[in-house]
Amino acid sequence: MAGSCFKTRLLSLCDYKTEKYIVAKNKKVGVLYRLIQLTIVGYIIGWVFLSKKGYQETDESIQSSVITKLKGVSVTNTSDSGLLVWGPEDYVIPPQGEAVLFVVTNFLETPNQKLGYCAESSKVVDGHCQSDTDCREGHTIVAGNGQMTGRCLGGDANSTGTCEIYGWCPVEKKYKPQRALLANAENFTIYVKNFIQFPKFSFSKSNVLETSDESYLKTCRYDDEVHPYCPIFRLGDITRRAGYNFQDMAIYGGSVGVMIDWDCDLDKGYSQCHPQYHFTRLDTSVSNRSVAVGFNFRHTRYFKHHTGEIHRSLFKVYGVRFNIMVHGKAGKFSIVPTAINVGSGLALLGAGAFFCDMVLLYLMKQSTSYRERKYEETRQSKGASQDNSMEERRNSTDLTKLNE
Amino acid sequence: MAGSCFKTRLLSLCDYKTEKYIVAKNKKVGVLYRLIQLTIVGYIIGWVFLSKKGYQETDESIQSSVITKLKGVSVTNTSDSGLLVWGPEDYVIPPQGEAVLFVVTNFLETPNQKLGYCAESSKVVDGHCQSDTDCREGHTIVAGNGQMTGRCLGGDANSTGTCEIYGWCPVEKKYKPQRALLANAENFTIYVKNFIQFPKFSFSKSNVLETSDESYLKTCRYDDEVHPYCPIFRLGDITRRAGYNFQDMAIYGGSVGVMIDWDCDLDKGYSQCHPQYHFTRLDTSVSNRSVAVGFNFRHTRYFKHHTGEIHRSLFKVYGVRFNIMVHGKAGKFSIVPTAINVGSGLALLGAGAFFCDMVLLYLMKQSTSYRERKYEETRQSKGASQDNSMEERRNSTDLTKLNE
Amino acid sequence: MAGSCFKTRLLSLCDYKTEKYIVAKNKKVGVLYRLIQLTIVGYIIGWVFLSKKGYQETDESIQSSVITKLKGVSVTNTSDSGLLVWGPEDYVIPPQGEAVLFVVTNFLETPNQKLGYCAESSKVVDGHCQSDTDCREGHTIVAGNGQMTGRCLGGDANSTGTCEIYGWCPVEKKYKPQRALLANAENFTIYVKNFIQFPKFSFSKSNVLETSDESYLKTCRYDDEVHPYCPIFRLGDITRRAGYNFQDMAIYGGSVGVMIDWDCDLDKGYSQCHPQYHFTRLDTSVSNRSVAVGFNFRHTRYFKHHTGEIHRSLFKVYGVRFNIMVHGKAGKFSIVPTAINVGSGLALLGAGAFFCDMVLLYLMKQSTSYRERKYEETRQSKGASQDNSMEERRNSTDLTKLNE
Repeated sequence: MAGSCFKTRLLSLCDYKTEKYIVAKNKKVGVLYRLIQLTIVGYIIGWVFLSKKGYQETDESIQSSVITKLKGVSVTNTSDSGLLVWGPEDYVIPPQGEAVLFVVTNFLETPNQKLGYCAESSKVVDGHCQSDTDCREGHTIVAGNGQMTGRCLGGDANSTGTCEIYGWCPVEKKYKPQRALLANAENFTIYVKNFIQFPKFSFSKSNVLETSDESYLKTCRYDDEVHPYCPIFRLGDITRRAGYNFQDMAIYGGSVGVMIDWDCDLDKGYSQCHPQYHFTRLDTSVSNRSVAVGFNFRHTRYFKHHTGEIHRSLFKVYGVRFNIMVHGKAGKFSIVPTAINVGSGLALLGAGAFFCDMVLLYLMKQSTSYRERKYEETRQSKGASQDNSMEERRNSTDLTKLNE
Repeated sequence: MAGSCFKTRLLSLCDYKTEKYIVAKNKKVGVLYRLIQLTIVGYIIGWVFLSKKGYQETDESIQSSVITKLKGVSVTNTSDSGLLVWGPEDYVIPPQGEAVLFVVTNFLETPNQKLGYCAESSKVVDGHCQSDTDCREGHTIVAGNGQMTGRCLGGDANSTGTCEIYGWCPVEKKYKPQRALLANAENFTIYVKNFIQFPKFSFSKSNVLETSDESYLKTCRYDDEVHPYCPIFRLGDITRRAGYNFQDMAIYGGSVGVMIDWDCDLDKGYSQCHPQYHFTRLDTSVSNRSVAVGFNFRHTRYFKHHTGEIHRSLFKVYGVRFNIMVHGKAGKFSIVPTAINVGSGLALLGAGAFFCDMVLLYLMKQSTSYRERKYEETRQSKGASQDNSMEERRNSTDLTKLNE
Repeated sequence: MAGSCFKTRLLSLCDYKTEKYIVAKNKKVGVLYRLIQLTIVGYIIGWVFLSKKGYQETDESIQSSVITKLKGVSVTNTSDSGLLVWGPEDYVIPPQGEAVLFVVTNFLETPNQKLGYCAESSKVVDGHCQSDTDCREGHTIVAGNGQMTGRCLGGDANSTGTCEIYGWCPVEKKYKPQRALLANAENFTIYVKNFIQFPKFSFSKSNVLETSDESYLKTCRYDDEVHPYCPIFRLGDITRRAGYNFQDMAIYGGSVGVMIDWDCDLDKGYSQCHPQYHFTRLDTSVSNRSVAVGFNFRHTRYFKHHTGEIHRSLFKVYGVRFNIMVHGKAGKFSIVPTAINVGSGLALLGAGAFFCDMVLLYLMKQSTSYRERKYEETRQSKGASQDNSMEERRNSTDLTKLNE
């Protein structure tokens, strides 16, 4: 008996059970439901799958390596430095071709600085003095050039002088750049080699066009229409595409972002994954006037006299800082996001049905009738306390008979 | 006939079909189901939408550009180097204002090194010797200072000497730093300019406060309570906030991470997106004693005698390495994640109903009755082998009649 | 009366409503449905939860700080530079231990360059000339070494000369590297300290093995089998693991990526989160022949004669550029992704049921019978225009009677 019961149970597992539906011949709600269905299906297919590629697993953790190489020569002639020739080994800082690199376009050399005593620069406001008491001995000013000796040079009751300091003398003079000294830096070229990898998909590629024409990479220049995949950029073109004039920017320097954007649909294959270049100026913004425009820093070259005394040349260099940033996203078909998106869409269909039910059961004229048809009350409503399952079974058998 | 049939079909598409429910007047399961419903709805609204902002599409692939500028002067006086003045051009390495920068706080200069023959440093354990046979001619030790000549200097059966090497002589002496030479580096300031971009939302912003008060950015110092958006930091404050004393750290050097955290809710607008700063020490950990504390490296300055001979100054510099790391997340309302989250929540409601069904149909006293009411058997239970669809149709017509 | 009605409503909220199912004793569809159910449940458990860890919230925005330190000495002997000793302060560029570092393996020194007039290098094709008219005075060639003076040196109708330039003279000679000068760079070691952080989970760790054995970190060398967590790498081992011979690569230089991969299951605890190292060559690819193999750049050392004249040494250095890239992902149990995945899976079950319904209702022999049983028509089919809700109620009461 138990075996037969078990067998019945097992067999009943193979019965297919399907929800019983009530057909409400209500055109309004019917059409409303069809509209909701269409909207949701349209959203799933159109937006999720076609526009957002919801069937793809995405990898945004791009691994990137950038190498840069500049070419170009410039000659400058200043009273302090004389006739100078600048090659990439001088104007690119650091010279080893990093993703963040600085190109000198303007400079101020303070040659032959020696450690000693001299007047603080008049640029340093805290170094102004009228008498020795204004200069605290042994004190250093945060924005100053050395340590105060306690003496005030050239200051008296009527005129403002500057404190004497111990430091690298003479101090850098005041300088208001008027024009870019390395004016032809505009024509320098930068070769950007970018190697990327999407670890999740074991996909790697380089931005250098795969071409059998060897001379192409020697002569091409990037142009978003004619040569969109040429990795060699003219500096003047970069700033122009960022919306600024190179010569204006070269005077005080600036910071330019070169974004390399990899948006790869790996379902389409290796050759369809191309970089796109975007250029932005980073050190200025229309809305934010408080950011000082320009970019400069100081570096030094140390020399030794034959007497053993150290002296140095201080260079204040202005220039354009290029920041090559790589951003990327790869998508590839995957069952998990597809299932999540389809599943969620279907669940939304259920929500649509629930909404239509509410309309049908509570807002329509014949609501009560629909409600009573939809919710079939069990006999427990009357005989709940009896718990007579034998009778239940008989009743339901009766029902089955009736239904035949 | 076919046309009429097609028309009927088409019309029936506009009928609304709704699941038929059985009302089980079982308070226990009813309350259980309501509780499950409330829990899930609460979870969706409270956790997913309010706490985790599940209605937003997020972009974590922040693009960031960091420029730093240090200010401050320090004077050191040592027997090897004499009285030296250190400006940012000397103590910041590299000087061009990168996101990873090193500030010298302590140093050991080995001046006037020349290529020649001298004894290996006694720090190099593999360079110890007792006789010439311990020194392999032409051999270089990985941690050594030059190439062995094969002679042992000062070593005999009783005492340990060191091998003679060809290298930059004299070799660097043993040095155990006692105090930081650039003690006032604590008061140096660092100006951090951070420009960020969320490519997905075309949103960009800078950490420099947008203020019309020009002097603010000259005088303010970061303070998480008073000036949380001032981008100028005192070095001593940074280490203090990371939990360490600057003077202690300055002796052997160290590594400090400055995290700039952008957590932007773009639904709230541009002005509500602010950076937050966090500071951590990176080169030490409570749990990991095997990481050597401190940070130092060596760099050189090359000079040429008037005789043409090259000599150099070797600097072993200890200092604090600042690593400015930018992390960010932007969220903006989007229909896809909203639909996914609502959809999944609704599907969970279905899971709740399924669970309650199980309780009702298998755990309640009147289970059998419920089961028979819920699962309406088709006539196939008796006439499955007949497959007489004509009879089926008649039967169902009977049913329809009965239902009237 | 209204109160009683409200009470009834309230009580009815506690009734449990469950869908009414029709049992279709159709084994084919039944088995099909069970198979679909099993597939979906298997997919959810096996793929989503076990393989993809769908119950975890993941953080891919790893914060990482990398410090490197090299050890090793090399001696070179060339006619231009004489006997030179190279320590890390010379061959590592930049010397401060960044994540991107360059190790010199080969070099060409052009000593004693002075500003003056000389012939352009014959390497510069645009500098070739046959008469003075080929050399535009004041013009600079992008890939050249200086500014043309307008004179053609050594060129006439029969032979090709080169234009005279003003620049750093003598210009660098032609050089075709034959062998790596710093041959034993293969044995140099690099100590990589990597500190990572997953901001979302406030989890941080270092790649340096936590060991109480202090000598371990002094003697160990990375080996993926014996010492997988030793952070000290032999340069030759790195290139070998990337699939290249160090000596071949050292001649013209190259670029090697060291990927540190953190795949952390934070549910398993702190100690189970280990880095994995992968090595790839970045400057060459089988598919892309257009990327020039090799890596070199130029840097300079400036000297001053006792006469005040500046001269310099130009170094063209070839070498291996190591790019340490950190990639990581951390996962931790979270209720949101679990709910999303479970929910979507359940919704897919609904899709399975819908599919089986379609099969049952339109493809089976007894489709019509099933259809009529499933879709119970409301009386509106006949009396829709009457809108007599009183009659409706009576009808449904009749039905309830019939059902008893």
